This record gives sequence, structure tokens and C-alpha cells, in this order.
Amino acid sequence: MPIKVLAFDGDDTLWHNETHFHLTQQALRDLLLKHAPDADVDNRLFATEMANLSLYGYGIKSFTLSMLETAIEVTEGKIPASDLAVILGWGKRMLQEPTELLDGVTEALREVSRRYSVMLITKGDLFDQESKLARSGLAELFSGVEILSDKTVDSYRRVISRRGIEPEEFLMVGNSLRSDVLPVVRLGARAVHIPYYLTWSHEHVEESSLPAEGWYRLDRIGEIAGLLASIDNGARSPD
Amino acid sequence: MPIKVLAFDGDDTLWHNETHFHLTQQALRDLLLKHAPDADVDNRLFATEMANLSLYGYGIKSFTLSMLETAIEVTEGKIPASDLAVILGWGKRMLQEPTELLDGVTEALREVSRRYSVMLITKGDLFDQESKLARSGLAELFSGVEILSDKTVDSYRRVISRRGIEPEEFLMVGNSLRSDVLPVVRLGARAVHIPYYLTWSHEHVEESSLPAEGWYRLDRIGEIAGLLASIDNGARSPD
Repeated sequence: MPIKVLAFDGDDTLWHNETHFHLTQQALRDLLLKHAPDADVDNRLFATEMANLSLYGYGIKSFTLSMLETAIEVTEGKIPASDLAVILGWGKRMLQEPTELLDGVTEALREVSRRYSVMLITKGDLFDQESKLARSGLAELFSGVEILSDKTVDSYRRVISRRGIEPEEFLMVGNSLRSDVLPVVRLGARAVHIPYYLTWSHEHVEESSLPAEGWYRLDRIGEIAGLLASIDNGARSPD
Repeated sequence: MPIKVLAFDGDDTLWHNETHFHLTQQALRDLLLKHAPDADVDNRLFATEMANLSLYGYGIKSFTLSMLETAIEVTEGKIPASDLAVILGWGKRMLQEPTELLDGVTEALREVSRRYSVMLITKGDLFDQESKLARSGLAELFSGVEILSDKTVDSYRRVISRRGIEPEEFLMVGNSLRSDVLPVVRLGARAVHIPYYLTWSHEHVEESSLPAEGWYRLDRIGEIAGLLASIDNGARSPD
């Protein structure tokens, strides 16, 4: 069955995201150094984020709350409120960061939208993702937008069944093996993995745990139209 | 044209919500009293929330971040980190609060779902609202669920047009004149206002600014089936 619907992830697939988290986390390390020189800030923050995930979900507000909690904990409450105000300010700055597109995104979306129905499927904070999409200038290129609280087999199934799309007609493009590839392939649809240079630990999965078939890997989004042409020509299995 | 689709708001229409915010805000006043006895905490918090609304959107995480900012500001940075940790804890507690239904909700939804297609349309934080719905035990009663970042004429129009619903066939039920009544009536659809005993200042609108027709008021959700029967019998104008 030929592919009819392409869906793209947003963060680190269409626009830069993890870089902002990474830089902010670096600033947090530097800030906490003077209060708790021996603290393993990265691991403590990650542990806090994971402990909070089922309460907070994904996104910048959740990250900000977890940074504040980590800062208070690793300094045993010694951090002054003025430094916590600095952390609050970082969260606000991240929320206002311009949506900076990856190279070739606009051209690639324009090209594939001539032959396929093109959707955006992102996960995270509804308000923040809508705002990023609005600032991206890409909104008009999508025939549908879905912002999910998490990307699982079930959440993908709901999205495509509500739109009357068969798994065989659906292809997901994204940077996360955990969120954009694994659940999609398990659903019986296809996926394209385009790695970003940074991956949040939570999104990491061992490649050995992935199915051998049903997904492809590209170095950059500009190669997507070529891959789709070769799939449509019958070369259905990866590489 | 007869009504085909009923949509219900969630917070303070189906389940208690504002009460939790109200009690937490009271605890914040008490906590800040010892550091800043003269501070007008309610007004400062509301001003902070309004200033942050375009960045944070609605919801408990946004509220928690605004409480922290207010606490630091009104104490001029004198509040100890341990007290800020207490505020972080309040946010987490609110996020875990059981979804406590208003009286008569389950019965009313069961009754109307026999004759109408019934939807949930809430605004706020995606993750938190999904979690509340899951805990409410009501999920199976809805044929559709929409969680919006804000409720405006445009966002209602998108929801109903995507589902092929005409405004004349649509009726929205909720506690907020600003979010559940005004934009819906402006769209040409109908609305039912069921006041909750508390209203967040942001949701307040003067009744004189509302259209005279196109909406109804009930004291409790249990009266909805009766109202719909009288509307369907041709009594289309309010009271």
C-alpha cells in the first residue's frame, strides 16, 4: 500500500530544542557550583525529572520546576531565593526562544507536501508547542497538527484511526528512536529516523531493541523526498 | 436545527478545580505573612499570573511557577529556599488531587449521552487534563475529547468544523461566561452557564457584555436533560 500521510516530529526534527535544554543545564551546573561544589548536578537533575515525569509531563515548565527542586536539594536549602529567581528567568527565556528551524526543513516540507498529506505530531506541553509552531512559520504546510502528552503505540493508533488512516499508509519522521520510531513500527506503520546531534537521556534506546525492518535512517531532512520516491518504487525494506 | 452535539467543560463544571487553587492561595498568604506581613499577596499573585499567561498558559504548573515568583518578589528575596520547596510541594499535591466530581455529573452525562453525542472540551495543561479525565472515570462517556490551550471563537470553530458539526447543532455547557459561553454564542452556537461557587478573577466577565440570546443558565448539571427537552420542543429562547 503506498504511503499517503507523512507525519513529522517537531522538537529536534524541524526545529532546535535539546540545545536550549543543554545550555540551560550547563548554566545550572555553573550556578550551583558555588553552593555545592561536589554535587553531580546532571544526574540529580535527571533523577528529579524522571521522578516528576508522571506528575509534570514533558516541556519547559516541567524542566524549570525540576531545576528548582534540584537546586534546593543539592544545596540542602542553602541556595538564596535570588538564585532561584535566576532559574525561573531561564525557564521564561527558553519559552521565548525563537523557533529556529533545522537546515532544509522548509524546502523538504514544501516538496513532500505536493505528493503527500503532511502532519505535525509532537509531544510535550500544549501551550509551548502551539506557540513554537506559530512562531515557526510552518503551520500552513500541515494538513493536521497533533500535540500529544506522550508518544506511545496507543497514542499513535488513536491519531491515525481518528483520521481514517491505515498504518500501512502512514510514515513518521523524527529524531527520537523511542518516540518517533519504535511505537510507529510496532503499530505496523513505517518510520524514518533522522538523528539530532544531542539526545536527552530519557529518549535514548539501544538500537538492538529496535525491529530490523519497517524503518529507515537519514542524515538530514533534505533526503526525505528521495527516500519516499524509492519506497514508492517498490524498494520497501530499509537500505 | 436540533442540537446534536453537547460539549461539557471539565474544571468546575464536571469536577472541582478552583477550590484547590483557592485553598493553596490561602496557604501561600499564610506562608508569606511571616516574611512580608504587609504584602497584598492575592493581588501580586494575580498580577504575576496575568503577566505570565502568554508565556505559561493555564494550569497547575503555571500556577506553581507564578507562586514561586510572587513569593520571591514580595519577600524581596528574603524567603528561604526551604519555604520555596514547600510551594513546589503544593504544586505536586494539586497535581495528584483526586478528580472529585460535582454532584449529579455521572447521572447527567449518562442521561444526555443516550440522545446526543457528548464531548469534553477543556482548556489548560494537556498532561494535567488528560490525567484528570483518566482519574474521573468519565472517559468512556465522551465520544470526543478536546484539550485546548485557550477557549476562543477560533478554537471552538476549529473543533466543530474539523468534526463536521454546524454551530446550530452545537451546545456547550460550562461554568465560565468568558470561556464556555461568550465565544460559543459569538460563533452562532448555544451555551449553558452553570455557575460554580468560586470564579477565578481572570474568568470573570460582566453579564451586561453578554448577548441577550443564545444561552441559558442552570443551577445544577442535573437540570440539563430537562432544558434540552424544552429546547428541542421549540422553546429556543432563554427564560
